[in-house]
Amino acid sequence: MVTLKDIESAHERIRPFIHRTPILTNSSLNKLSGAELFFKCENFQRAGSFKIRGATNTVELLTDTEFSQGVATTSSGNHGAALSMAVSRRGGTTKVVMPHNTPKIKVNNVKRNGGEVVWCEPDQKFRESVLRKVVEETGATVVHPYNDERIMAGQGTCAKEMIEDIPILDCIVSPVSGGGLLSGTLIAAKNMKNTINIYGAEPKEADDAYQSLKYGKIIPNKTINTICDGLRAEIGSKTFPVIQNLVDEIIPVSEKDIIDSLQMIWERMKIIVEPSCSISLAMVLKNKKLFKDKNVGLIMSGGNIDLNKLPWM
Amino acid sequence: MVTLKDIESAHERIRPFIHRTPILTNSSLNKLSGAELFFKCENFQRAGSFKIRGATNTVELLTDTEFSQGVATTSSGNHGAALSMAVSRRGGTTKVVMPHNTPKIKVNNVKRNGGEVVWCEPDQKFRESVLRKVVEETGATVVHPYNDERIMAGQGTCAKEMIEDIPILDCIVSPVSGGGLLSGTLIAAKNMKNTINIYGAEPKEADDAYQSLKYGKIIPNKTINTICDGLRAEIGSKTFPVIQNLVDEIIPVSEKDIIDSLQMIWERMKIIVEPSCSISLAMVLKNKKLFKDKNVGLIMSGGNIDLNKLPWM
Repeated sequence: MVTLKDIESAHERIRPFIHRTPILTNSSLNKLSGAELFFKCENFQRAGSFKIRGATNTVELLTDTEFSQGVATTSSGNHGAALSMAVSRRGGTTKVVMPHNTPKIKVNNVKRNGGEVVWCEPDQKFRESVLRKVVEETGATVVHPYNDERIMAGQGTCAKEMIEDIPILDCIVSPVSGGGLLSGTLIAAKNMKNTINIYGAEPKEADDAYQSLKYGKIIPNKTINTICDGLRAEIGSKTFPVIQNLVDEIIPVSEKDIIDSLQMIWERMKIIVEPSCSISLAMVLKNKKLFKDKNVGLIMSGGNIDLNKLPWM
Repeated sequence: MVTLKDIESAHERIRPFIHRTPILTNSSLNKLSGAELFFKCENFQRAGSFKIRGATNTVELLTDTEFSQGVATTSSGNHGAALSMAVSRRGGTTKVVMPHNTPKIKVNNVKRNGGEVVWCEPDQKFRESVLRKVVEETGATVVHPYNDERIMAGQGTCAKEMIEDIPILDCIVSPVSGGGLLSGTLIAAKNMKNTINIYGAEPKEADDAYQSLKYGKIIPNKTINTICDGLRAEIGSKTFPVIQNLVDEIIPVSEKDIIDSLQMIWERMKIIVEPSCSISLAMVLKNKKLFKDKNVGLIMSGGNIDLNKLPWM
């Protein structure tokens, strides 16, 4: 079980290698929501998302022997880019298995951060088999994007910073996908401030965490037909029990609300965030009663978005 | 003549009503430029640009009698929005004369900040004649966007903050249009730190300040065929002498370089800025020798851009 102490240790370990990201406010969005909103800007984080926290924590914990054989992953998204950056910084190599049809922006994100692309056919089974082959041939260590206690502890450092910087927070809203960020947030926040409420925001179109909570067991996604490319993963066996135990509520959000709130953040705050984090604002705006007059922390988890394909166009 | 003391007084006057905007850095752009870059984020400023500084200073200096008769302008851009906000806050009304074909985003910016639109036919002569009519009928005070010492003093507070926050600055790059921001920057910076160099960045396609400096007198723009909608104005009779006297150099920048640097700032810094300020980064990247190993302040003057019409698409 990950503890607050693990998160504190992770924070000491990764501190030299990550940004302590700023927390922004916006008076027009406060007015619109009826709450005081505090946006934790992980879109300004290294490699463009909070994922560098867990990735750096895990990479730093690898032994020299493990590390010398390289690191591998099938994540072509923010985890792949962050892992590549963390590994490059320590002086190693990351092999990222991704299908031929991966969008160019994701390929570039991985390459720019020093990752090496291993191509495969576009089907999950090929990704897994190619990854296995890489591991067999090189002895590389696979770093899972969320179902790993080192990752969960690293992601928890984000909420720790939020509570340190804004002690008056009444609640935090975190997007939920595989559950790494949400479980880390829960462990950090609930142990640092026992009155705080923690909510997960999840796309209606990929609501496995909501369903799993409802039925008391892990239920796979029925669809992943969401614009939030960072929120299509399935809740993990290590993250789900933490969420089940500690979360106040997981609330599903429609695609339209996610896109509307994305445009709102861009226009009013002048910052670039992904749909995978505008979902938190969308959830607050659709549940105003729940947040009325509260001090609400929202994790703006990342800013990696294809600027040639904006969802409102 | 505007003095540093005027700028200091303006700063005290407007401080309660503006943001002290943050200064961001970006390691990848430092690497690319070979300099240490400090981005003063006026895109996060109230009403979305530095224009609120000069507008607030001027509005606060109006007498109660003047103010009670209203304020008017023909600027449908950032000045119009900022003036509307400053006047609304003091409890008055702003009439903004603009042509029927003004882009919707600009109309909304003015309206959202409490300005009242007065429509006219789309030609400069109609704008001026309708403005005159408004003034005759209402006694409104016209606040010029830049050729006014109160405006110049207000805009100078931006550079003052930069030098206070980053005393190691070796130079500042400011976009130049009518010259309000550049002249205020020059007076503040050169009087606060006599070793500092100040450069103007101007579109090649609207290079009247560059030409005027070259020929020692005000030369009108030959074209205003630039994407920088905030940089199409002509240098003013009050701003030009300051620039002529104090600026180190004005350097013209191509449209392509402006657009490339815009995309670069969005992608790497995750902030939304206008082409009218990415021009400063473009200028630095095209003149690397001039800025090598220097601490360079760049004024990101505003973030009001139509998110449905991105220039690289």
